[in-house]
Amino acid sequence: MKKIAITFGDPNSISPEITIKALNFLDLPQDKVILITNKNILDFYTENYNLNLEKDYPVIEIPYEKSDIKPGKETKEGGEFAFRAIKEASELAVNKKTEAIVTAPVSKHGMNLAGHDYSGQTEILEQYMAKTTQKAEMLFICDKFKVMLLTRHIALRNVDQYITKENIIAKVENLNKSLINQLNIPHPKLVISGLNPHCGENGMFGNEEIKEIIPAIEYLQKQGINIEGPYPADSIFLDCFKSDCKYDCYIAMYHDQGLIPVKLLERNNCVNTTIGLDVLRTSPCHGTAFDIAGEMKADESSMIQAIKLAIK
Amino acid sequence: MKKIAITFGDPNSISPEITIKALNFLDLPQDKVILITNKNILDFYTENYNLNLEKDYPVIEIPYEKSDIKPGKETKEGGEFAFRAIKEASELAVNKKTEAIVTAPVSKHGMNLAGHDYSGQTEILEQYMAKTTQKAEMLFICDKFKVMLLTRHIALRNVDQYITKENIIAKVENLNKSLINQLNIPHPKLVISGLNPHCGENGMFGNEEIKEIIPAIEYLQKQGINIEGPYPADSIFLDCFKSDCKYDCYIAMYHDQGLIPVKLLERNNCVNTTIGLDVLRTSPCHGTAFDIAGEMKADESSMIQAIKLAIK
Repeated sequence: MKKIAITFGDPNSISPEITIKALNFLDLPQDKVILITNKNILDFYTENYNLNLEKDYPVIEIPYEKSDIKPGKETKEGGEFAFRAIKEASELAVNKKTEAIVTAPVSKHGMNLAGHDYSGQTEILEQYMAKTTQKAEMLFICDKFKVMLLTRHIALRNVDQYITKENIIAKVENLNKSLINQLNIPHPKLVISGLNPHCGENGMFGNEEIKEIIPAIEYLQKQGINIEGPYPADSIFLDCFKSDCKYDCYIAMYHDQGLIPVKLLERNNCVNTTIGLDVLRTSPCHGTAFDIAGEMKADESSMIQAIKLAIK
Repeated sequence: MKKIAITFGDPNSISPEITIKALNFLDLPQDKVILITNKNILDFYTENYNLNLEKDYPVIEIPYEKSDIKPGKETKEGGEFAFRAIKEASELAVNKKTEAIVTAPVSKHGMNLAGHDYSGQTEILEQYMAKTTQKAEMLFICDKFKVMLLTRHIALRNVDQYITKENIIAKVENLNKSLINQLNIPHPKLVISGLNPHCGENGMFGNEEIKEIIPAIEYLQKQGINIEGPYPADSIFLDCFKSDCKYDCYIAMYHDQGLIPVKLLERNNCVNTTIGLDVLRTSPCHGTAFDIAGEMKADESSMIQAIKLAIK
């Protein structure tokens, strides 16, 4: 069992609720968990919702005023707290005080209000944890299949410029290495989708398959990596309906190409992970759900799976 | 019951097989069907596969040499045959000799080899059937939900330039009118997805939602059209898991955003239709499947549904 650090995410979202519920459900050994949170937030949930953290885990305290607890509101203060918690977790990992990180959902907009311009938690972890040679990859681990995104939170109109032979090679090599070393899959079988409808149909609508994707696949195959494709994105996941997926990991070109199948096929049976850095980071695959924050109806199952995967 | 014209698609694909099987299964009245096909092709299936068309429907003959029947091969001759069949069907519709069109799958590449540069059958029908004021829209009708594509077979890098307020308004108005007039839905409830991940999160990654999509929705709502959105593409379809879809039609920004859910949720329980022209056109939602042509293992269920929907 690994030692893990858990961040409490945005304090005004469903994050504290799902984190406390998940911790109570899992009842982990005290010496295996470090919480990065704040006493005022924990007290608020006990006092207002009778939701009490049932075990005393070691806590790293991030400052947060009681008066700034405003369930349902995206605020600068919430964004600042969320950012500092992730930074703290990164430092624990760099200093080898934790073997994995679990992060509850944060608001990108909130962090932006606090002056932290990142497109997501993955990018913060990459900045604070990565050695010069390391890159972080976003990998969704579901019950039946895994999906890596080649591009993450960027405008759709900019996706194309990142679909280069060099980028694909670097990211797939990183994925392959991490599947072997961090997820104990000795011989990963990978498959990659096309960028364009029907993979561009021989260049009729889009030529990235011909110019970038196929040459990258051929290079990777020569390096001994077991990868197939490109296959059309609208049929590549049909395979997952069968009892076992044929591939250990699907590689999607952009966010919605990977996340539509993840959410449709697995919904909450899914963990968002960051691989390629020194320690594995996991996170539930849903967002902050500010619209139901403070209503005590959030589903903690994805957070439970995130913690289970990290500690394994 | 409407009178329908049925094209046989690419003669070297699975199209003749699924069309004959579907016609035998449905056993339609002879005066309600016109087949656009060729005697050599029908004879080939009888002689080689013992697959005989069990009823004598009226036939419009398109020339095709026996020696050009090559199951599994994408050829210029196959493309020419497929193109001429669609053109013939369009003319029947324009001359009011048919009330609906059913098209079996064709090869865009094959039609290109024969010198016909179209990105799909929809565009051919649009050219030959549309009056100056008419536009064709691609609508997938599944068991549980319907999806319209705002853009069709174009490179992903070009999608963005078609996501304009004017385009969205024109296409949604066309959709709304066709749902009322061609599909007998008196008060359509529509929903539209965003273009960017998480709808761009307030312009952080992509501003098409703010600049084009939201203004279009507001305009359409003022015109009395019942439309909601934009909602993130990776969660908009979750609703379809429930017993009944909340919306009569989902509007997707681009091909894979709409087709990934269609194929994952409905697979073959789906019909590809063209609306907005004088007559409804239907087609199975799968492709030519040249890889299994001539093996007599193609599934005709989507073709059966396409014919049923057209004749209704």
